Amino acid sequence: MPSIALSPLAPKSLPQMPVISGLLFSTAEAGIKYRDRRDVLLVQFEDNAQIAGVFTRSRCPSAPVEWCQAHLTSGTARALLVNSGNANAFTGQKGRDAVEISARLTAEAIGCAPEDVFLASTGVIGEPLPAEKYALIMDQLAGSGAATSDAWETAARTIMTTDTFPKLATRTFDLAGRTYTINGMAKGSGMIQPDMATMLSFLFTDAPLPAKTLQAALASTIGRTFNAITVDSDTSTSDTVLLFSLPGKNDLLEDSDTAGFEDALAALMKDLALQVVRDGEGARKLVEITVSGAESDASAKKIAFSVANSPLVKTAIAGEDANWGRIVMAVGKAGEPADRDLLSIQFGDIRVAENGIRSEGYSEEATSAMMQLDEIPIRIDVGVGSGKATVWTCDLTKEYVAINGDYRS
Amino acid sequence: MPSIALSPLAPKSLPQMPVISGLLFSTAEAGIKYRDRRDVLLVQFEDNAQIAGVFTRSRCPSAPVEWCQAHLTSGTARALLVNSGNANAFTGQKGRDAVEISARLTAEAIGCAPEDVFLASTGVIGEPLPAEKYALIMDQLAGSGAATSDAWETAARTIMTTDTFPKLATRTFDLAGRTYTINGMAKGSGMIQPDMATMLSFLFTDAPLPAKTLQAALASTIGRTFNAITVDSDTSTSDTVLLFSLPGKNDLLEDSDTAGFEDALAALMKDLALQVVRDGEGARKLVEITVSGAESDASAKKIAFSVANSPLVKTAIAGEDANWGRIVMAVGKAGEPADRDLLSIQFGDIRVAENGIRSEGYSEEATSAMMQLDEIPIRIDVGVGSGKATVWTCDLTKEYVAINGDYRS
Repeated sequence: MPSIALSPLAPKSLPQMPVISGLLFSTAEAGIKYRDRRDVLLVQFEDNAQIAGVFTRSRCPSAPVEWCQAHLTSGTARALLVNSGNANAFTGQKGRDAVEISARLTAEAIGCAPEDVFLASTGVIGEPLPAEKYALIMDQLAGSGAATSDAWETAARTIMTTDTFPKLATRTFDLAGRTYTINGMAKGSGMIQPDMATMLSFLFTDAPLPAKTLQAALASTIGRTFNAITVDSDTSTSDTVLLFSLPGKNDLLEDSDTAGFEDALAALMKDLALQVVRDGEGARKLVEITVSGAESDASAKKIAFSVANSPLVKTAIAGEDANWGRIVMAVGKAGEPADRDLLSIQFGDIRVAENGIRSEGYSEEATSAMMQLDEIPIRIDVGVGSGKATVWTCDLTKEYVAINGDYRS
Repeated sequence: MPSIALSPLAPKSLPQMPVISGLLFSTAEAGIKYRDRRDVLLVQFEDNAQIAGVFTRSRCPSAPVEWCQAHLTSGTARALLVNSGNANAFTGQKGRDAVEISARLTAEAIGCAPEDVFLASTGVIGEPLPAEKYALIMDQLAGSGAATSDAWETAARTIMTTDTFPKLATRTFDLAGRTYTINGMAKGSGMIQPDMATMLSFLFTDAPLPAKTLQAALASTIGRTFNAITVDSDTSTSDTVLLFSLPGKNDLLEDSDTAGFEDALAALMKDLALQVVRDGEGARKLVEITVSGAESDASAKKIAFSVANSPLVKTAIAGEDANWGRIVMAVGKAGEPADRDLLSIQFGDIRVAENGIRSEGYSEEATSAMMQLDEIPIRIDVGVGSGKATVWTCDLTKEYVAINGDYRS
């Protein structure tokens, strides 16, 4: 469990989450790993929801990731079941059995097909998930008395592992002459360099959008949001983002202009993604790294991640040391085209290096003052083209080592 | 400066280094960054030495790296000048000027051409190197009274930065009916994932081998020695390995069977490479990671480095936690072919996972006992082919963060 009670970068307050009708939350203590806390979240959709998703590209995906991928093709969902404390990853046939038991028990309790139940698990890798425990709590969990439409905070807390705060965000957007809402939650703190998604994030909108529109919108926004963050360069076996729309009895909007929706979705996802970095294990600084002048956007992102994942850059930031020489090193090791003799580096508005050398007017004092802020913007131009990318990371502190030296035990 | 006085993994004693004739060491305090310690090493060759080298593949190489690369083509050397405390990297025209001043002052003092002087610098990136300081010490440094042939330990100490111990190794080998010696030194502790070499290593043999034979031998051994280690995944701007032969007045052996030499060279380089990992910043464990069953040797090495560089694997090892689930994660994120359902993992002789699931006879107690050792061998088979590779890393401790949070200041 986290040795910091609350990240110093936590938002001051939780957002007010509007109700999305047709959506019901319930939570329970299944006692899978944690004691005396809720560890299972059930989200029920009164009518079929439309669903889209993106998942980890790990070569060792968890059993629930494979389950979701297999059943996403239908485009519809009736429920989402999420547990914390056990990832059900690298659990072989037992893991696949646990997934089937989980879906069957949920389906029986709410009256749908197992294939309409989507699953996500987060926690320790390699331990069998005791899904039979769900039998003891499922009636209570799925019962109408337990479910509410406004339990966003409880839901977001239930799926936390080493997170120090629940992650919620909301946006509105206009579509075909009406205003709609999109709400989301996320969990994640360590094992964060999502390759298709973050650890877990669930997004819900009342706009009657079909699954294929949801999927296209996810695909076009994931690269600059959840896939542009890192805490420790480690990609989870469980990364899952699911996006649901709840059309209720309304017709699906097949051919509307969805630009407003995509903008709102991108803003929501970036908000949640940055909350994950702000809750990065041991984090005390949020660092925004923008690379420009690269050969392509993809090359810029690779260089930005090389800087964002460098232990030497991250420890220097933890030490509030403007050690920009380590940024030069991290650009150099990325293996992407970069002109050393045109390279420039800024911390915020302070230019520290340009044309392959320390800036003439470099002030250690001004730069050191900048390093004491909670949020550090770093701008790097590599001088070869017009490719650009922004990624976000946090610093690397002794707390990170402490949290991860004894997480499992 | 290091906050640990001596790495707990340091060798118990330094090797006895045989004299290699024709080789003279001298050291001095130039006061480049450090106070009250020797920071400049001069190695003089009485006759022309044959020289070969490999260097960082950083896109931002240091000025001395570029100098060495430009002058290596001649195949001969008269001197090597090394300083610690300043890397002369990302120093633009000032850096190139400093390199020329260094070579010229050395050449004038010993009577050779500047092109016959090879240079290496290690330390902070981005600070101008005050090469004019060499003018004050060069006569003393190059003078015959100061130079000795047996000052291996002093030489190795002079080039240290955050290293906690000097790194020396020696081997002998047979060639064309005679026994020869090869001696080497290295420095390195942080910013270690060499891409062509380690931070700095200088190797010397009395075998009369020509430069092209030396270069071929380096190329064939570097991949499984210096290029198979990591401390923190960060590749230096200054990585340099130089290999010198000192034929004296003897004819060069152009077409001998050099298998014995290559074996000795590989053993020497592996010895020095592992000393670098043993002195990894904050290290308390040496970890050997062998990946087999990969699609190719290159794929195996990529997977092995993915495990070796994972902060979550390294912090678990620091915590003596047999958290093999994180190894599954790191194999998964490598992006290389691997069959999750055939994956097996061993700590030493203890099999912890096989066929995509925790081993039947898994004993937490036995595995935890293994984790308390100083040296942890991890074997991973990914079940798709016959590719194999071994790499070495160390654990990630709070000391690493402490050392790197305030190195520059």
